[in-house]
Amino acid sequence: MSQPSTDFPPVLTRYADMVETALRSAVPEGAAPLYRAMRYHMGWADAAGAPIPGARGKRLRPILCLMACEAAGGSAKAAISAAVALELVHNFSLVHDDVQDQDRERHQRPTIWALWGEPQALIVGNAFYALACGKVLEMALLQVTPDLALRAAERLVQSSLEMLQGQYLDLEFERRIEVTPQEYLGMIALKTGALMACAMELGAMLGSGSDGLVSIFVQAGRNIGQLFQLRDDVLGIWGDSAVTGKAVYTDIWRKKKTFPVVHALQNSSKAAAKELREIYGKESLSEDDVRRALEVLEATRARQEAATLAGKLAEQALAVLRAAELSPRCSREMEALVSFLLSRDR
Amino acid sequence: MSQPSTDFPPVLTRYADMVETALRSAVPEGAAPLYRAMRYHMGWADAAGAPIPGARGKRLRPILCLMACEAAGGSAKAAISAAVALELVHNFSLVHDDVQDQDRERHQRPTIWALWGEPQALIVGNAFYALACGKVLEMALLQVTPDLALRAAERLVQSSLEMLQGQYLDLEFERRIEVTPQEYLGMIALKTGALMACAMELGAMLGSGSDGLVSIFVQAGRNIGQLFQLRDDVLGIWGDSAVTGKAVYTDIWRKKKTFPVVHALQNSSKAAAKELREIYGKESLSEDDVRRALEVLEATRARQEAATLAGKLAEQALAVLRAAELSPRCSREMEALVSFLLSRDR
Repeated sequence: MSQPSTDFPPVLTRYADMVETALRSAVPEGAAPLYRAMRYHMGWADAAGAPIPGARGKRLRPILCLMACEAAGGSAKAAISAAVALELVHNFSLVHDDVQDQDRERHQRPTIWALWGEPQALIVGNAFYALACGKVLEMALLQVTPDLALRAAERLVQSSLEMLQGQYLDLEFERRIEVTPQEYLGMIALKTGALMACAMELGAMLGSGSDGLVSIFVQAGRNIGQLFQLRDDVLGIWGDSAVTGKAVYTDIWRKKKTFPVVHALQNSSKAAAKELREIYGKESLSEDDVRRALEVLEATRARQEAATLAGKLAEQALAVLRAAELSPRCSREMEALVSFLLSRDR
Repeated sequence: MSQPSTDFPPVLTRYADMVETALRSAVPEGAAPLYRAMRYHMGWADAAGAPIPGARGKRLRPILCLMACEAAGGSAKAAISAAVALELVHNFSLVHDDVQDQDRERHQRPTIWALWGEPQALIVGNAFYALACGKVLEMALLQVTPDLALRAAERLVQSSLEMLQGQYLDLEFERRIEVTPQEYLGMIALKTGALMACAMELGAMLGSGSDGLVSIFVQAGRNIGQLFQLRDDVLGIWGDSAVTGKAVYTDIWRKKKTFPVVHALQNSSKAAAKELREIYGKESLSEDDVRRALEVLEATRARQEAATLAGKLAEQALAVLRAAELSPRCSREMEALVSFLLSRDR
């Protein structure tokens, strides 16, 4: 693998305009307050509805989808509706996540529920999901046969059900005392992996890839989702708050049971594990609790273990992709993307 | 129209077993806590997962769908996947409604969020919607051509977007001082009407009805949704709490701006309207506030006006259906159903 880099690889910007244009046309214009709130969330407008130039998300799922489509020999255009649908599903889950986590800010802007209320945010999230379903169905009018459109829609729906199952398990784990690293990896394969796997699956399908290629991409996409989540877990604790826009040690303060904590609970001395469990059992934490929790994590090298595991998943993803004998350009781009995801700092 | 009756007309029970069997097979079995929560919500299991015999919802949307299918000349079986999908969409909105309204009970049982938490309830609701989309797509495997399945899925998604728009408007109206009865009717045509219209639309489509018949059914379905909501509004204030399972005058206590209140605000003396607005502007109401609000409503005959309007919408629905020249049996059943919805007491 090439040297990890935190710079955006060109593949993350190559499709940017195409994705952004298609995304914008997927969210209805007009004054309806529901759609205004959706445009605000996407970063295209301020709370009063005035347009905002620039500022975009990474659009990682659309990019994975379009890359897979081209890698399978298709033109990126063939997968653009699917790519947009995937980003809409992702934003559906972001809007609801903010309610669930009671996050008042995302990317330094007030979240939907913080601005307009929780009942409103539920609806805004739901509308993103319904739009996503509409978008994937629309494909039949534009690019593909009804049969293929149906299959793509069916895969998107099943993958979002897997995502929801992962989210539910995640909440379940927060309440449980013992969660093994293996269980945690299974949960994030659903919560984060299902949609990334779906992105690559739909891309390959719509690029007319063989069934064999499609299943290789599903596998790689799931691993990419897992390593993405492991990096997220590291950033959630040790990320630079000036870059991530979140408070220092934010996931410790919120007692999130992410991988480093799961690892530490399994690999600490009995006394340290007991102490960590006690801290995580408290109603709210003191500075001292957080400092002590970090010490327990560091004693088990939890941060390094998360990085090592992410690296292994990256190797796994790239190994499975090697079997697909992609073009040199595709291989290079996949490697650059994976390398970026391993080392990104936000 | 026949004499209103609060008894369940036979058409509400004729399809019951068919609908219930298909619904049960749509929600996955197994121990996953997400699916266990869904089965609990549907009334099939207790909180621990043990089966509960009996107890069912009205399943009004599936019934409208199957009736429309038969009325169009199809066999009810052709529309069963769509009927199930509609009921799942309805339950998606119920689970989220309970969170939004902070309702701790539904049908005398604790709601999902009250039992398992709000984050959990968001996911359970979302999973109902995703299952609904899966169900409507599944049709292609069973009953119909890919083209028709795609069209049905597209209509379901668009109708749920309309429903969401209506829900968002409803929240918007709660904050506004002036809402006209006309605006209110437009809002409930979306919030409640869209899904009922979709039920009749999909039924007619899947029963191979002509485009003309389909659009007649859409119109009738929307009116049926509106009159259903107006009856709901009346029951929300003056319903018998022993029958509805809700507190007396519940919608007044919650300061819901339903039709009777909208009507009273528009038709009261200046002084009375001002007083009602003041009561609705308070943080929380006293017994005296509620009594006084009811007096203002009664002075404008708000309850009777709601019933009269519902009756007009019923006439409208039946008039438009008459143009479809349905079989005598279908006509009788539609009349019985509408009559029941006008006078139901829960």
